[in-house]
Amino acid sequence: MPQNIPIVENILNANDRLAEENFTRIESAGVFSINLMASPGAGKTSLIEQTLPLLKDKLRVAVIDGDIATSIDADRAAKAGAQAAIQINTGGDCHLDAVMLRGALEKLEMDQFDLLIVENVGNLVCPASFKLGTHKSILIASVPEGDDKPYKYPGMYRGVDALVINKIDLLPYVPFRMDYFERGVQVLNPNVKTFPLSCRTGEGLDVWVEWLIQSVMRNP
Amino acid sequence: MPQNIPIVENILNANDRLAEENFTRIESAGVFSINLMASPGAGKTSLIEQTLPLLKDKLRVAVIDGDIATSIDADRAAKAGAQAAIQINTGGDCHLDAVMLRGALEKLEMDQFDLLIVENVGNLVCPASFKLGTHKSILIASVPEGDDKPYKYPGMYRGVDALVINKIDLLPYVPFRMDYFERGVQVLNPNVKTFPLSCRTGEGLDVWVEWLIQSVMRNP
Repeated sequence: MPQNIPIVENILNANDRLAEENFTRIESAGVFSINLMASPGAGKTSLIEQTLPLLKDKLRVAVIDGDIATSIDADRAAKAGAQAAIQINTGGDCHLDAVMLRGALEKLEMDQFDLLIVENVGNLVCPASFKLGTHKSILIASVPEGDDKPYKYPGMYRGVDALVINKIDLLPYVPFRMDYFERGVQVLNPNVKTFPLSCRTGEGLDVWVEWLIQSVMRNP
Repeated sequence: MPQNIPIVENILNANDRLAEENFTRIESAGVFSINLMASPGAGKTSLIEQTLPLLKDKLRVAVIDGDIATSIDADRAAKAGAQAAIQINTGGDCHLDAVMLRGALEKLEMDQFDLLIVENVGNLVCPASFKLGTHKSILIASVPEGDDKPYKYPGMYRGVDALVINKIDLLPYVPFRMDYFERGVQVLNPNVKTFPLSCRTGEGLDVWVEWLIQSVMRNP
């Protein structure tokens, strides 16, 4: 249906402009921000839950959770110690976009925070096409998803600044060849920073949290 | 952007009409067909790989694999014994639609087969909105994705005819409450047929395969 292509481009252009406005708003409040993306069940909410207690008394954190339905994620973030947790229900949409994030940002007093974590809808495809205006895009892969994901979802793997490899505690129980996975990542995104960890056992979380803290500190 | 809503509706209506044409084509060839949907890495291709050898000498199977990039899936299906395996590369699109399936169906001599398996793009959101024209829609959930998925992706769970619960061999290693998961499914889709199984150990595959064979037999 080629007649629709210009409309899609217009939507993406409008989204990019709004993403820039979001970035200006976040940046001018001195907040560092990340956009967490992943398949359903890779561990976005678990990573937030495990990260927040380790940032306690160090950083003031706001969490914005995107989901199709329910407020399960924002509730979990609030319980884990987020200073603010806002749920965006996309009403069926498969990704967050810049206008949704703008609506959520308007509910936050941005200068009360050091770090903003945006949890996107669980989806390895669509969120990659919609900039939100955060500083960094972060993908969480998980070991039981399989080692072929970089090859099959190149758009997502190519566009991110950091890659968390979650559920490494399951490596003994599933057929996951780390070298094959890493080769796929290397081709698409040679400079991506990777964080192998387990939200369940806590292994590797310290390196991830240290990187987050350093990123906030370096943010002017 | 309310001005786009009619366009989206037109696309979905056009898709539904093409899906009916696909259904007529499949049905008139006496083929039984399923649309396999799941998150990335839940085990769509693995289920096909484990199922095909158990159907050998019983059913003639064609597999149509939808993916954003690569032909990894169709190659695996062919190797596992599919009489025909066709890869659709969606070129970035996050779901199969009826026009893509029509293109693939045109490459198959349909009366050579008893069963058509369509493997959709790994995505728990978008494929639920696009009918393809198959007899049954089947969702594969997997244990490491977590027990909250029915609550968070209601559109997908509501619309399917059968639910495979894969990777039950990982139940001892992950926090997955089967009763909580099943309560969520029950509310959305009380009559859905469920198949707990493990593609890795083979547990439960016999019940699933028997259901497939019976479904083909009952198909006029």
